[in-house]
Amino acid sequence: MDRGLLHGEGVFETLHLRPSGPWLLDEHLDRLERSAALLEIPLPPRSDLAELAFQGARAWPGDEGALRLIVTAGPPPVVYATVGPIPGSVLRERREGIRLITADRGIQTPPPWSLVTAKSLSYAENLAAKRWAIRQGADDLLWLTPDGHALEAPTANLVWLTGTTLCTVPPDGILAGTTAAYLLEHAADLGLTADIRKITATDLPAADGIWLASSLRGLAEVHTLDGTKRAASEWTPRLLALLGFS
Amino acid sequence: MDRGLLHGEGVFETLHLRPSGPWLLDEHLDRLERSAALLEIPLPPRSDLAELAFQGARAWPGDEGALRLIVTAGPPPVVYATVGPIPGSVLRERREGIRLITADRGIQTPPPWSLVTAKSLSYAENLAAKRWAIRQGADDLLWLTPDGHALEAPTANLVWLTGTTLCTVPPDGILAGTTAAYLLEHAADLGLTADIRKITATDLPAADGIWLASSLRGLAEVHTLDGTKRAASEWTPRLLALLGFS
Repeated sequence: MDRGLLHGEGVFETLHLRPSGPWLLDEHLDRLERSAALLEIPLPPRSDLAELAFQGARAWPGDEGALRLIVTAGPPPVVYATVGPIPGSVLRERREGIRLITADRGIQTPPPWSLVTAKSLSYAENLAAKRWAIRQGADDLLWLTPDGHALEAPTANLVWLTGTTLCTVPPDGILAGTTAAYLLEHAADLGLTADIRKITATDLPAADGIWLASSLRGLAEVHTLDGTKRAASEWTPRLLALLGFS
Repeated sequence: MDRGLLHGEGVFETLHLRPSGPWLLDEHLDRLERSAALLEIPLPPRSDLAELAFQGARAWPGDEGALRLIVTAGPPPVVYATVGPIPGSVLRERREGIRLITADRGIQTPPPWSLVTAKSLSYAENLAAKRWAIRQGADDLLWLTPDGHALEAPTANLVWLTGTTLCTVPPDGILAGTTAAYLLEHAADLGLTADIRKITATDLPAADGIWLASSLRGLAEVHTLDGTKRAASEWTPRLLALLGFS
């Protein structure tokens, strides 16, 4: 029995499988390394993890799929890879957008042992938060600091547009997003500028477009924020195309 | 592959195995039910879990041992039971006591989706906190609220003696402890009274005895608190005997 698995002691990455292979593999392996360092889990050689990802991609017959790479703490560390379809709820959120609510996460400054900047297998509270949001009549929630600044969603990052500036929040007290980073790096391809800045829940409704970004969803446009309906952004299809979703 | 295990989505209990069987089985099954309700995990019949615990106890050849009962979210839920020896570090802490430091957990009031009152498999941050304490030159840490009130240790509860009153903290924002509850329920056997009350880190050093209580340790006396050495309490052997450790 894998002792790490029984304590949620492991790190993982979820990658979008495309006909071209596992998307943003290098960026995901970079983040896996940062997560593993925080949990003090020794990783196998990077080339082995990359080869495993390619094997997973070759094993998947569909147009798009989900690859999970997992390394548990053990000891000894154990590597797992799973491949499967994109969940229907994820495809629907990408296509139709979401109702998002904001909620205080209750943590102003994470303590020094905090793992909020790591993608760990201790994911039960993230999933519980999402279930709570659904009980409130929403699809997802955006965590805030007690003083009202946006952090992240339990399984996605916040991206918004102000005029022609595409923004996300600084990577403090959150898991830095690979999809959000890609969008900002390539914003110029669409004639947009990019910026990393803080935003409060009070200022967020004035944004010209709000999305949650994650590897499988790509983007889910926020069509309803804290119960208030928003106009659809003309940028949603362009940003999805920039991510390779069309 | 058990999907629940890959997300730290499960609940567990650790029980002390004695020649008489798994100790405080009913209390542990009660807590497992409360944890499972919080994580929305359906449990198998209680009699099946009890029978599994007895089977585990019969399979263990030693004088004392550790039994873990685990139920993952799945779906479908999967039940695991493991038996093994008491870790050497636990036996040493019971025998020799510990150096404890206090540290702000950063959470004044847990959010409504919080799982801090459940014993879930998402245990990585508990273990990271303990590693952090060891890097600070301690054996364990006591989490505090931002306003300085004692909560719990990552894998144990706080118990202290003030005069002839044995105390623990209210079960708010912590995992209520089975061992601490047993001690308070049976305090009268030693001529002590029992009380559930809050205490600040400022007031704690004045206690006449301080312990961490957990199922495998029983009790570990705090012989050093935030770097200050404390006199050994004459109550430690009596309280350990009350728990059946001698």
